[in-house]
Amino acid sequence: SVVKTEKTRGGFIKTVKHWSKCNNCEMTFMIFLPEDQVNRQRCEPYPAIYFLSGLTSSHENAAVKGQYAAQCKKRQVAMIFPDTSPRGIDETIPQAGDADWTTGYGAGHYCNATQAPWNKHFNMYTYVSEELPALVERFFHVDTERRSVMGFSMGGNGALLCAAKQPERYRCVTIFSPISHPTQCELFCQKALTAYFGSQEGGAEYDIVNVLNAKGNSLTLPPGYVDVAARDQFIDALNFPSLIEALNTNGHSNFPVNYHEDYNHSYFFVNDFIEDHIDFHAGHLYR
Amino acid sequence: SVVKTEKTRGGFIKTVKHWSKCNNCEMTFMIFLPEDQVNRQRCEPYPAIYFLSGLTSSHENAAVKGQYAAQCKKRQVAMIFPDTSPRGIDETIPQAGDADWTTGYGAGHYCNATQAPWNKHFNMYTYVSEELPALVERFFHVDTERRSVMGFSMGGNGALLCAAKQPERYRCVTIFSPISHPTQCELFCQKALTAYFGSQEGGAEYDIVNVLNAKGNSLTLPPGYVDVAARDQFIDALNFPSLIEALNTNGHSNFPVNYHEDYNHSYFFVNDFIEDHIDFHAGHLYR
Repeated sequence: SVVKTEKTRGGFIKTVKHWSKCNNCEMTFMIFLPEDQVNRQRCEPYPAIYFLSGLTSSHENAAVKGQYAAQCKKRQVAMIFPDTSPRGIDETIPQAGDADWTTGYGAGHYCNATQAPWNKHFNMYTYVSEELPALVERFFHVDTERRSVMGFSMGGNGALLCAAKQPERYRCVTIFSPISHPTQCELFCQKALTAYFGSQEGGAEYDIVNVLNAKGNSLTLPPGYVDVAARDQFIDALNFPSLIEALNTNGHSNFPVNYHEDYNHSYFFVNDFIEDHIDFHAGHLYR
Repeated sequence: SVVKTEKTRGGFIKTVKHWSKCNNCEMTFMIFLPEDQVNRQRCEPYPAIYFLSGLTSSHENAAVKGQYAAQCKKRQVAMIFPDTSPRGIDETIPQAGDADWTTGYGAGHYCNATQAPWNKHFNMYTYVSEELPALVERFFHVDTERRSVMGFSMGGNGALLCAAKQPERYRCVTIFSPISHPTQCELFCQKALTAYFGSQEGGAEYDIVNVLNAKGNSLTLPPGYVDVAARDQFIDALNFPSLIEALNTNGHSNFPVNYHEDYNHSYFFVNDFIEDHIDFHAGHLYR
């Protein structure tokens, strides 16, 4: 149900709570719709961009800090901000809420866990790529055919995973500052992947570098690109060169990784480029 | 000292920590400078807008959520985001950090407390109107003559107080959704003002309605206006009509209060109008 509706930039952003079947808990997301008034809809459904956020974020971070709304209004696209993990499951997984910031609440890593007790709730890959789009497309004026995905940091790996695993479902994908190789990233992923899969290597199916290498030349990625900050304070842990290599060696040399001088890992960086990303998405969503 | 520098919108936002004499503790603020490169300055110092945030905020909230930077760059003005209270003084005032959200950390109310132990640290009026500007103007390329103030919620009362108490120091003032009459506002101010002044009425010197009534026609307010949200969820507690009446009965009928349909109390509202505010400020700062 819609728990809050806020006017902004010529549209409305709604906060929505719902029961998630795949995560076995209540989930919250936000959706920006470029409508002039609450409930006034044009006939044609809006194409939609899914924005996957980074570690520690909730459904609110990108929705509140991101400077997307004016451009989404202009290009007539909806934007959806899922939460980054299940919440409120302390009875099933007492450690979920107070695990460190790399694991548990705020750190779903957009994967489907295989190990108990996490596998009952931590199925964020299915949530963001299937359950949530189906729900959004059913209850909001959002197109069932025209969908794309964007992501930042942990959500950069997540967004590119969606596009690589289900390329037919996404018109395009662009990402910011991704965790590029989770199975090799101790700082952000070791503890979570070990909890969710029994070992860090066990998360290979949700590591974009591994997925690109496994699919090789058989994969046609949707159009897209990567923007990264040259002064990212986590640049070693994020390991952009591993992604560049996996893209180039598997036939995706038309999927560029752009370094930007002077920026670091923050929404100040995202916001300077998100309007260009939205233009790119709108071009593909309305092609 | 500058602890972080982040590029955004053609300028740089810096996070600065310093010892505050009047608050007897370390304080943090952020400053946006519309410079093309770190340390590359034009000859003329930048006029500066001080943005006072609301209850529960830190120096980060408006600086990160606010969509000011592109317009500040365009109009070549600096913007400064003070914290809303002292922090880290648990040894002197054990209850400061875990008081409820209306009192203590995040709730300085831009007043100078008179009651011990608060009066040793809670001197936010002097901090934002005198100590911080002097520091900013000494250490950054910011003009000592051209200064203005903006505020949201608790910071709306604070900004208008600055302009009413020291009109010669501010070229203009605009505010969003102010707590309009703190000494009559139980929800947000009773506990804090009682702690800081011994009674809620004791804070009259920092209540904009009382200050306007006390100064009467002798006061020439700097130019400005107020934007409020017609669907503000706190509309009763904020009590805009009391401010409108105080403005009108004391000769400030050229200081309008504009109601905006459909909006509520959030940065989604602030962001839809902050560019207009910056244009208004730039017009007065560069007049």
